[in-house]
Amino acid sequence: MLGLMFRVSIFGESHGRGIGSLIEGCPPGVPVSEELLREKLRLRHPNTDLFTSRREEDEPEILSGVFNGRSTGAPIAIFIRNRDLDSSSYEIFRHVPRPSHADYVASVKYMGFNDYRGGGIFSGRITAGIVAAGAVAGSLLSKFGISVMAHVIRIGRAVVERELSPDEVRRAYESPVRCADSNVSMKMVEEIRRAREEGDSIGGEAEVMATGVPVGLGDPPIDTLDGDIAKAIFMIPGVKGVEFGAGFRLSSMRGSEANDPFVLRDGRVETEGNKSGGINGGISNGMPIRIRVAFRPTPSISIPQRSVDLREMKPVILRAMGRFDACIVPRAIPALEAVVSIVLADHLLRWASWMWISRG
Amino acid sequence: MLGLMFRVSIFGESHGRGIGSLIEGCPPGVPVSEELLREKLRLRHPNTDLFTSRREEDEPEILSGVFNGRSTGAPIAIFIRNRDLDSSSYEIFRHVPRPSHADYVASVKYMGFNDYRGGGIFSGRITAGIVAAGAVAGSLLSKFGISVMAHVIRIGRAVVERELSPDEVRRAYESPVRCADSNVSMKMVEEIRRAREEGDSIGGEAEVMATGVPVGLGDPPIDTLDGDIAKAIFMIPGVKGVEFGAGFRLSSMRGSEANDPFVLRDGRVETEGNKSGGINGGISNGMPIRIRVAFRPTPSISIPQRSVDLREMKPVILRAMGRFDACIVPRAIPALEAVVSIVLADHLLRWASWMWISRG
Amino acid sequence: MLGLMFRVSIFGESHGRGIGSLIEGCPPGVPVSEELLREKLRLRHPNTDLFTSRREEDEPEILSGVFNGRSTGAPIAIFIRNRDLDSSSYEIFRHVPRPSHADYVASVKYMGFNDYRGGGIFSGRITAGIVAAGAVAGSLLSKFGISVMAHVIRIGRAVVERELSPDEVRRAYESPVRCADSNVSMKMVEEIRRAREEGDSIGGEAEVMATGVPVGLGDPPIDTLDGDIAKAIFMIPGVKGVEFGAGFRLSSMRGSEANDPFVLRDGRVETEGNKSGGINGGISNGMPIRIRVAFRPTPSISIPQRSVDLREMKPVILRAMGRFDACIVPRAIPALEAVVSIVLADHLLRWASWMWISRG
Amino acid sequence: MLGLMFRVSIFGESHGRGIGSLIEGCPPGVPVSEELLREKLRLRHPNTDLFTSRREEDEPEILSGVFNGRSTGAPIAIFIRNRDLDSSSYEIFRHVPRPSHADYVASVKYMGFNDYRGGGIFSGRITAGIVAAGAVAGSLLSKFGISVMAHVIRIGRAVVERELSPDEVRRAYESPVRCADSNVSMKMVEEIRRAREEGDSIGGEAEVMATGVPVGLGDPPIDTLDGDIAKAIFMIPGVKGVEFGAGFRLSSMRGSEANDPFVLRDGRVETEGNKSGGINGGISNGMPIRIRVAFRPTPSISIPQRSVDLREMKPVILRAMGRFDACIVPRAIPALEAVVSIVLADHLLRWASWMWISRG
Repeated sequence: MLGLMFRVSIFGESHGRGIGSLIEGCPPGVPVSEELLREKLRLRHPNTDLFTSRREEDEPEILSGVFNGRSTGAPIAIFIRNRDLDSSSYEIFRHVPRPSHADYVASVKYMGFNDYRGGGIFSGRITAGIVAAGAVAGSLLSKFGISVMAHVIRIGRAVVERELSPDEVRRAYESPVRCADSNVSMKMVEEIRRAREEGDSIGGEAEVMATGVPVGLGDPPIDTLDGDIAKAIFMIPGVKGVEFGAGFRLSSMRGSEANDPFVLRDGRVETEGNKSGGINGGISNGMPIRIRVAFRPTPSISIPQRSVDLREMKPVILRAMGRFDACIVPRAIPALEAVVSIVLADHLLRWASWMWISRG
Repeated sequence: MLGLMFRVSIFGESHGRGIGSLIEGCPPGVPVSEELLREKLRLRHPNTDLFTSRREEDEPEILSGVFNGRSTGAPIAIFIRNRDLDSSSYEIFRHVPRPSHADYVASVKYMGFNDYRGGGIFSGRITAGIVAAGAVAGSLLSKFGISVMAHVIRIGRAVVERELSPDEVRRAYESPVRCADSNVSMKMVEEIRRAREEGDSIGGEAEVMATGVPVGLGDPPIDTLDGDIAKAIFMIPGVKGVEFGAGFRLSSMRGSEANDPFVLRDGRVETEGNKSGGINGGISNGMPIRIRVAFRPTPSISIPQRSVDLREMKPVILRAMGRFDACIVPRAIPALEAVVSIVLADHLLRWASWMWISRG
Repeated sequence: MLGLMFRVSIFGESHGRGIGSLIEGCPPGVPVSEELLREKLRLRHPNTDLFTSRREEDEPEILSGVFNGRSTGAPIAIFIRNRDLDSSSYEIFRHVPRPSHADYVASVKYMGFNDYRGGGIFSGRITAGIVAAGAVAGSLLSKFGISVMAHVIRIGRAVVERELSPDEVRRAYESPVRCADSNVSMKMVEEIRRAREEGDSIGGEAEVMATGVPVGLGDPPIDTLDGDIAKAIFMIPGVKGVEFGAGFRLSSMRGSEANDPFVLRDGRVETEGNKSGGINGGISNGMPIRIRVAFRPTPSISIPQRSVDLREMKPVILRAMGRFDACIVPRAIPALEAVVSIVLADHLLRWASWMWISRG
Repeated sequence: MLGLMFRVSIFGESHGRGIGSLIEGCPPGVPVSEELLREKLRLRHPNTDLFTSRREEDEPEILSGVFNGRSTGAPIAIFIRNRDLDSSSYEIFRHVPRPSHADYVASVKYMGFNDYRGGGIFSGRITAGIVAAGAVAGSLLSKFGISVMAHVIRIGRAVVERELSPDEVRRAYESPVRCADSNVSMKMVEEIRRAREEGDSIGGEAEVMATGVPVGLGDPPIDTLDGDIAKAIFMIPGVKGVEFGAGFRLSSMRGSEANDPFVLRDGRVETEGNKSGGINGGISNGMPIRIRVAFRPTPSISIPQRSVDLREMKPVILRAMGRFDACIVPRAIPALEAVVSIVLADHLLRWASWMWISRG
């Protein structure tokens, strides 16, 4: 389950009737509209020929919980209908699983009943449901001045070396690969293009940032803010690592180097530097939350690979055909913003309860 | 909340009455005893003068849910009583928070009511409760041939470069720093000793491994196995990053390099290589699960640091005094094993339900 | 939340886009089809002019989680689109709430943002989503020989005095008021007709029965089977009381009279009599589960009533106009079967996990 | 699970080490002390020879989450240690279950591993943990002017016919059977005494009342306030029915009789009469919440009963010996207050979140 007070479920399959999400616990009065959802869903489709975006635009329908442009307090169901799709190229993966893809584990876990077409629930397509739910969370957060934004900081060997400011990051959607540094953006395009030409795929890294988060979000000892964010991020296909602030680099640092000294700025307690990434002890400290996420290269490649035919239990060479993205990171950016928004909305509601109780 | 079918709560403070955990949903018949818990808790105290271990041994008491050496099916409560401790050195941190420690966020979030003594719920001491609960989970897992083991792979610049086998990792507890490579172990000791002498602290990395996990654990789209493991790991103080398999290194790889080809071994489907770390699409694939965890240097150092006096709202220089570990990674090893065991036990129970339904 | 392993959410409003439900945790391989759902939904509309059934048939659409007529193991979303409806007669209730209806509490709780049209989420219409989810639960239960059936045992003063057998109860749908005793059925029709003619409404009682339930379902101390069933039943509009077995009558009995002696029948342990209603200590005992449910008369009546105009804060006389049922009990019968089926499916999955663990 | 924001778990067995509870999510600053808990636990032991109260007083120990007399915001664990007890008389019930007791279902469900001594988790003793947690909830509620009180309204044929005011109910603890009407109280004492003399037991009814509850508590469509209260009440051993307001009597009423007209009192919207029992549509309406609870006679009686020897699978006559209460209702009164307090505290916290969000 995702969330305690702001609870999100997602449903749907890549080549089934569609993709959706259900939000329970959203307070009444939050501005929500199909236009808002459509706008966010559009961000999943960069305006470039680098990716295999489905041609038509996603048409989200709000099935419940919104009335006169505002959340009602009742469960909000959202549905995005799929167009008719050709699933024939996936038939083979039922029995000859793609290496490092979910084909194999799905057929075992679901005992052959899973909807394998288009990757079923393991397709990047399911992030449409996440993005729709995230749009509602984002609308709630914006009432409290909280912004969540993500961008791509690595594709293969093309890397953004410097730390970008929130204002720079906000412009990442102008880049076809969602990289806010225009020089690196061009190199990333090249990395993807080359991988694609070779029938291969390529991994990458993204950064998510949240500004305006008040001090005090997170519920240790179990529901830490970083833990809940990490769990939510792993919902996104292809994620293999999550770190906060200086993350893995902290493991070779001394405390004197890693600690962020407290300072006063305009009468507010802040820190100089932000190696903690805005979270201490599982609780937000008021500084921008900074998260880095590692994505593996998409496992679907047309280069021949060794696999196993599960019916005959013998080794085979698989050459996957189909419309696969050579890199999923740019298209995952809105999903990253969405899951972090959802977790922040949940913890904001939890925090709000204690605030009211302490003052009420 | 931690777990759905095997649910663990933890409670207690560093200098309060004690530390404990509550396990709900443990099936009946699992061997559990205070001796087993004591043995696991002992692993939190390496036999070395590098760490500040409390002198007496932890004495776990099973308060409920165990009868004649077996779990009964009822909630299992475990309590480890604290000895009388001197909390005077912590008085200062209420108003002059240690940089990058939870002192500040705790005082804001809990509105001054938190038990700040010894770091309260933010102390590494809380991992005693986690370890106790993990021992119960481990006992359940062992009935199904599942083993979880962790070891330290980096302290500062001392790094284990090669991949160790499960059998090697199992011997990590012989090292005072829980590093299974004896050469690197000595360098790690040096890293810690030097940091301590300079009044500083030092970070590190650990690896967790789980073998014998059947194919099919994990419940996407939300409760992915990697997501649930990541969340649980963030309960451990000092964690700043989690990755699976080749993790962040996958972000600069091509798919052809990152994919683990399927092969047949003794009639079973396995993969050659394990860059996926035993998980695809949020579901275990039968290969060893491999997780790497980044720990920050402990924020408590005696080197003077800039902080803020929260009563008078003015900048001050803090020089923290007290018994602080210069490195927390070795002592976190049993806690890492514990949280991963707990998550695996939970998903094993979830998986078992479907197995029974499909066959029953 | 409803359920732990078999989790059901419902959404939708009476006069919004439609009504639906989401099922998470349903194991793969369970037969589910739109035809099955349609059949169950039809039971909400007795073939009689006693009730205000919407003219067209409910057309359930399975949005996800079902493939080739079987559950896939992924979340199952179901949606039943509403037809265009005239909501004008409800405008008044926003400001002049119907006594004992949810109009007033909804406007306060949801701060005026609730979708009041047709009663919004408080309409009996929401039971369509419950019934759809219950059909999936029922399909799972039937694989294990578990049947759930309900019938009306009281409308006003018309009462079924004797205890009906499961076989008799199964025929209740032949009666327009879902009463399996044909004599009483006619009297019930009269009770409803008379109330309606007088612009009034009338209450009633229903009994739910579940047969084939194995010994051992229920998870005390908290998630008792009776407690979980009771909670689920209160989701149905108009419910004001729930009792198991002899229920409130037990409160004036002696133990020697109330106890069900254990006997052996065909080598199985059973009880003589079933005053416990199939549950002891929160756990099913293998006997038929018997539940009685009290329904209030629907609060919407056209007889003038005292209310308050909330805008002007002054007393007014309200005479509610609209298409209201004079009695909701017969139409609630499939919803009762559904919620009990859902709870049993959830506890069956929980129980199955322990069964597999103990044998595996 | 019990509660979402204010979550309570209970643990412990009748003849094990003790009984306890764990509260997660309690906001900081709530007054809690062992003296407060002791006082509430004392109410479980009426000052009379009618009941088999253990001789020594319950000594609650707060293991965590309270500091300087206030909740800290961290999990609160409470433990009440059992004295050494003689469990020999229970040995027989492992194999010869008491009719209508949990002996039989427990031995099947827990596969023989359950702690059967003293009834294990099915003993009325577990209500000590509930009462302790309820004391914390009550302390939180009292900050908001919410009071919860319960009393006995029926023992066998001795019945309180009139509706008592909250002020009268508050005096119920002066009666040895917790009945606020002193005439009926004496008759109840007689009912119990007579049943006991005959080696029998007797059932009863209790009423719970909550005053000061704001409009808006409850989260339909699933987590209705009445549903959550009902579920919690079924945690108490012996409960077989729950009704709100006029409850089952509403089933024979007309709407015109059952509805509570809205009226203005001192500028506030109230209702005349309270047949709804303070809840409409699953949400509190600001009137006193009124709940009636049916308790079965305790199944442990010394009158010979038919049972089955589970080892030899043959019928036997059981004559239960041991210290059994002839009536459990008076001793359940503080537990009833506790569970209702816990549910109200949880929904208060959920409601508070939306209040803060709407104003913040």
